[in-house]
Amino acid sequence: MKEYKVIGKSIRRLDAWEKSAGTGTFTTDIYLPGMLFGKVLRSPYPHARIKKIDTTKAEQLPGVEAVLCYKNSTRVIFNTSATMTTTVPPMKPVLDQYIFDNVVRYVGDEVAAVAAVNEKIAVQALELIEVEYEPLSAVYDAKQAMTSDALEIHSDCPAGKNIPGEIIHLEMGNLEQGFNESDLIFEEEFKLPIVKQVQMETQAAVAQVSIDGSITVYSTTQTPHPSAQILAHIFQLPVSKVRVLNPPYLGGGFGVRIGLSGKAEAIATELAMKTGKPVKVVYDRKEDFIASDTRHGGYVTVKLGLKNDGVFHALELKANLNTGAYCSFGVEAAGVLGAMGLSVYRIPHQVYHGHSTYTNCTPAGAMRGFGNPQAMFPIESVVDMAAERLGMDAKELRLKNIIKPGDKWVLPYPCKSSGLPECIEKGAREIGWNNRGKLNKPGDKIRRGIGMGVGTHVSNSWPFCVDFSNALVTIKSDGTIKVASGVVDMGTGTKTSLAQIAAETVGVYDMSKVSVTLADTESTPFEIGSHASRSCYTAGQAVYLAAQDARSQVLEYAADYLKERMEYLDIKDGVIYSGNEARISLAELTEYAHLHNKQFLGVGKVVPSNAPPWEAHFAEVEVDTETGQVRVIKLVAAHDVGKAIHPVIVEGQLEGGLVQGMGYALSEEIRYNDKGKQLHDGIHKYMLPTAEDIPEIKVILVEPHDPSGPYGAKGVGETSLVPTAPAITNAIYDAIGIRFKEIPVTEEKVFKALYK
Amino acid sequence: MKEYKVIGKSIRRLDAWEKSAGTGTFTTDIYLPGMLFGKVLRSPYPHARIKKIDTTKAEQLPGVEAVLCYKNSTRVIFNTSATMTTTVPPMKPVLDQYIFDNVVRYVGDEVAAVAAVNEKIAVQALELIEVEYEPLSAVYDAKQAMTSDALEIHSDCPAGKNIPGEIIHLEMGNLEQGFNESDLIFEEEFKLPIVKQVQMETQAAVAQVSIDGSITVYSTTQTPHPSAQILAHIFQLPVSKVRVLNPPYLGGGFGVRIGLSGKAEAIATELAMKTGKPVKVVYDRKEDFIASDTRHGGYVTVKLGLKNDGVFHALELKANLNTGAYCSFGVEAAGVLGAMGLSVYRIPHQVYHGHSTYTNCTPAGAMRGFGNPQAMFPIESVVDMAAERLGMDAKELRLKNIIKPGDKWVLPYPCKSSGLPECIEKGAREIGWNNRGKLNKPGDKIRRGIGMGVGTHVSNSWPFCVDFSNALVTIKSDGTIKVASGVVDMGTGTKTSLAQIAAETVGVYDMSKVSVTLADTESTPFEIGSHASRSCYTAGQAVYLAAQDARSQVLEYAADYLKERMEYLDIKDGVIYSGNEARISLAELTEYAHLHNKQFLGVGKVVPSNAPPWEAHFAEVEVDTETGQVRVIKLVAAHDVGKAIHPVIVEGQLEGGLVQGMGYALSEEIRYNDKGKQLHDGIHKYMLPTAEDIPEIKVILVEPHDPSGPYGAKGVGETSLVPTAPAITNAIYDAIGIRFKEIPVTEEKVFKALYK
Repeated sequence: MKEYKVIGKSIRRLDAWEKSAGTGTFTTDIYLPGMLFGKVLRSPYPHARIKKIDTTKAEQLPGVEAVLCYKNSTRVIFNTSATMTTTVPPMKPVLDQYIFDNVVRYVGDEVAAVAAVNEKIAVQALELIEVEYEPLSAVYDAKQAMTSDALEIHSDCPAGKNIPGEIIHLEMGNLEQGFNESDLIFEEEFKLPIVKQVQMETQAAVAQVSIDGSITVYSTTQTPHPSAQILAHIFQLPVSKVRVLNPPYLGGGFGVRIGLSGKAEAIATELAMKTGKPVKVVYDRKEDFIASDTRHGGYVTVKLGLKNDGVFHALELKANLNTGAYCSFGVEAAGVLGAMGLSVYRIPHQVYHGHSTYTNCTPAGAMRGFGNPQAMFPIESVVDMAAERLGMDAKELRLKNIIKPGDKWVLPYPCKSSGLPECIEKGAREIGWNNRGKLNKPGDKIRRGIGMGVGTHVSNSWPFCVDFSNALVTIKSDGTIKVASGVVDMGTGTKTSLAQIAAETVGVYDMSKVSVTLADTESTPFEIGSHASRSCYTAGQAVYLAAQDARSQVLEYAADYLKERMEYLDIKDGVIYSGNEARISLAELTEYAHLHNKQFLGVGKVVPSNAPPWEAHFAEVEVDTETGQVRVIKLVAAHDVGKAIHPVIVEGQLEGGLVQGMGYALSEEIRYNDKGKQLHDGIHKYMLPTAEDIPEIKVILVEPHDPSGPYGAKGVGETSLVPTAPAITNAIYDAIGIRFKEIPVTEEKVFKALYK
Repeated sequence: MKEYKVIGKSIRRLDAWEKSAGTGTFTTDIYLPGMLFGKVLRSPYPHARIKKIDTTKAEQLPGVEAVLCYKNSTRVIFNTSATMTTTVPPMKPVLDQYIFDNVVRYVGDEVAAVAAVNEKIAVQALELIEVEYEPLSAVYDAKQAMTSDALEIHSDCPAGKNIPGEIIHLEMGNLEQGFNESDLIFEEEFKLPIVKQVQMETQAAVAQVSIDGSITVYSTTQTPHPSAQILAHIFQLPVSKVRVLNPPYLGGGFGVRIGLSGKAEAIATELAMKTGKPVKVVYDRKEDFIASDTRHGGYVTVKLGLKNDGVFHALELKANLNTGAYCSFGVEAAGVLGAMGLSVYRIPHQVYHGHSTYTNCTPAGAMRGFGNPQAMFPIESVVDMAAERLGMDAKELRLKNIIKPGDKWVLPYPCKSSGLPECIEKGAREIGWNNRGKLNKPGDKIRRGIGMGVGTHVSNSWPFCVDFSNALVTIKSDGTIKVASGVVDMGTGTKTSLAQIAAETVGVYDMSKVSVTLADTESTPFEIGSHASRSCYTAGQAVYLAAQDARSQVLEYAADYLKERMEYLDIKDGVIYSGNEARISLAELTEYAHLHNKQFLGVGKVVPSNAPPWEAHFAEVEVDTETGQVRVIKLVAAHDVGKAIHPVIVEGQLEGGLVQGMGYALSEEIRYNDKGKQLHDGIHKYMLPTAEDIPEIKVILVEPHDPSGPYGAKGVGETSLVPTAPAITNAIYDAIGIRFKEIPVTEEKVFKALYK
């Protein structure tokens, strides 16, 4: 195996200086000459018709330059997420919202917006807008929204009342036959909470409009190119006249800004169009909670049929997700839930049937894992129940049934690699799996338990969504490298990883000589953006190909210059070698080339394959049987990452995800009161795990190398929380013998279960 | 001949809206958060050593954040122009200046710079800098600077005292034999003035420095990519970490900012590095006059040998140009003077011998025509003298001797086309050449005269300088087009012309669907920049190739989609045709392609050829024999432009150049007093022609099509003033019988000549 010089090394991150010095520019730091500030009036009702709206007084307030509402704003129907540019035919995108409408469908829905010379005046102006609402009945539960009592939140839903888009149906084998042939059948329904990304930086945008019809939008989007397409659609502009860019820093995403950042870009742009001045819109934290996408909660049913020897034989998975008032990724999330849920175990007879349902909650959309955590908490709970019934070790039952490379599965791309058995064995060793069942003495008030869960994920969104990448790699006249890619570095280290791929591929190991431009539709070729764990795998592959192209151009030129056959030449550490002989430095050659009218400009284009990352999570917990409090003692995450381009970055991704998964299991939830108001609409009300809650974490990287990714890498970002919740709930079961079919497993729920 | 749909049409300029509404952003409009203002202390002496400099008081002034002088600034020697990145080996670039040095070499030379929170404080701080100078003897004339009396302004000039770089020697045939075989020989020396570009926008830059070592510079440069290379050199940074961009508008150039804009970028950058804050440096008009490049003045000698039948047989051309205190393009300007001077007429025996010479004047560099006007005033004067002596019509003598396509010439690229005979004939008809000699009655106090001059030029700087282009053409998911090129639109309409080339080539005729990004090293591939009349010819060719590439990708995809052979397909007006049948709109196909993971991204790379534009200028003048005043009545400019992509833009270029040529002939000059101070250092002192002076102008476009340029286009920008001065001075001779060998031919000079 070739020894890499840059790949696999945890080099200093390219954003380290600016991040640590606090000098990096984020969207909120953008100030343009003459810039106005935009603020949004949001609905206090979960469902209402606007009978009357009068903006006169607001308009008359000195310092106010524009007020928008449904009466004077664009009437193009759209989708805030990438759906409309990423829905693969023959599926049709769900277009169900305007910037402002005369019906509001959740508490927080946009009613009007103001642009003023400062934020204070903008806020004052909001208070002067007079709105008369006719309240309509509201519903907050995905099942209830389908009943005959519920109002239609959006009409014309052909798949069923309040069901956006279509129902996802996946099938393999013959389900009826499968269950008929099964010796044991388990069927359980699970309830999933609505949770929030709570990324560091709230949704924000600064829009600037030129008199020639072109627009520039600094934005917190994770996907600048698709965002530009959505804005072009909303404002009926040529895509070539819409520039969207990160400025360049972005404080997290976790899926919350695939496509638009809430409606920040759209509102800022329309206010800029109305006023002719730049407009900044920054969501405060409460707005971010109530008016930008959550993770889908809802209901998932698992029906698993097994043979007496533990071989899985039939699986029926059903889902009804709460997509809130508008469908951003409601169809896709239901799709990924099914596709991932069916792809962990080798089961000959399988069916998935799932959809999302409109309610009067905040819209749900993409969040790290994108449906997959919602699948694996139920599935991995049922697998543990089956193991118990069969009297089998839960680890062994999994090892017996997991997919192997080459197995037939429901996914339309092959499984070429799996490090899952190794993940399971290594993780089990690390958590001390063999002590399971031996941790407690009779009468212990604090009871310990160990649990596990496994899962897979994707390395990009193909073939569920449109997914492709282009990249440029230029070798400058001084032999230094510039990489251009349209993905975003949300803080995940993408910039650094892409630089490593380019550096290793060209053969320049001094990272001070590699620069990367990201996330600007003007400076980078089209790229679907940062989501679906794809930045390293797919954008990385485009960078790899572009770097290969640039390298080939250099070697071809060097062959001519050195009078040597190209196949004898190599670039190592910025020097061109013929065999073992250093012939000329890359800097000298590129300067010579420049002075002879030659630029090395590599182009990489990727229509990606996909590759399954695999993960096994293990948890050790303590349950206080007097209070119901659950404390996680240790988390072990063993991950097949293909190849860790930058191990510290990968470990950081996994550690962060584990904590997010722990919050999903134990504490995080957005609930609504009967007026449709979020009860947890701020960081102090929403129960994120904090530093104090973080247990010992052990990350184990398994690197089987997948042939489709750059240097064998697979997607990582989302895998880190897929089976965390079931690992923890299975550990709780191990500790106290109570099976929770609803998360988060709060202290209150445990207490009630213990003492009901 | 194919009928074009966009090429050759005077469509609305892409910058029309922003320019006419006044909303376009220029460098001076850039305001960044926390930005400081930089001001420069300039030498009051033409030549002096700095004995002592004390910046303490300036540093202590509240609001001052940095003071730079030679003691605390970078000591990398450089060249403000592109020389260092564009000098073709084996020639070596002349590196002769620092940002600040302890010797000052002209009045205006940089002594120190201040960054402060506002301009007022910065100016106050300059006054607090204490400098003690030791004056040195100075010289302002190129001949005097070579004498033994003169001080060395720069030591180590191997080509001769105060001669930067090398002496240009061009030779064809055998000069001695040529003169021996000639029947008539004319030898005359001419004196050329120093003139100024007086572009609308003064030199300016705003620099922003990141803690990670990368820099971004908004700038008035004409050549962003080479500027980035120069800044990388000065500050010893990787080129890949230096971004230079226009913001995007630029108010003229005329060559004054090839490479850096004076030193605006360098000073702003170093102040930004010292303070950690963005710094803006904007030259005021006086600074722009005294401290940014002028056109070379100096001496040119023409020795022409002819046969009795008027056939030119031998030409010796010599030049000594005044390059001022530092050599920006001193070597290249001398080179182009010779190369162009030798390439208008078919002369078997030719020699050119020329160089520039350091003096204590403001540095001279590039200005529209770049040495060529300095060649053609002398040559075309001598040609007229010869015609008179031979008793031949001056037009016929020219027609007899001009180069024809295929003729051997001194240039290393072929002459593939010449519309010069047509230019001469059409121009002569328009001016009423046949009336020459019949315009005045004896005793007329106001005497009329007609004169002409011819010339050629280049369409780019190859092979005199490094010269190549890359461009990208993307066809977006809605079928609209984005062009990316690193050239600059200085106001010349380049953006529009490049859009036309892309539109015609792809087959999209609705120009609202075409956008162009220029002049940003981050958003565009390497491109040597806007100079040498090359933007349309060379960058246009790169855009043409990129558009061809993108079009081919579309047609290949369409062939597959439509199940049709690619060669039957065509794109017309945004629709894909099979033969005459419209099959699918480009927008539908590109949307389909997008939804199936395909982006059309065309790359164009050009190592250019070169092509000679040709021009014949005609002037009719009135000379008031009582006052000496010369009034130009009419100018006719007949130009072989290859193909006018946008006729109104071409005509605008030619009209503007004609007026600039008229100023060169009659009024413009920068002179120095004996203390080295410019006597004409402001718009109110420098005798630019104004609207009142502009005569009737008739532009005639001749379009022979040159095979090497896009749609047959050649360079145009500089040709417009090449033979204007001799056309006017020859007309003056026709009017009053006095031959001026020094321009400008001011009223005073004419009066003195009439009454000496």
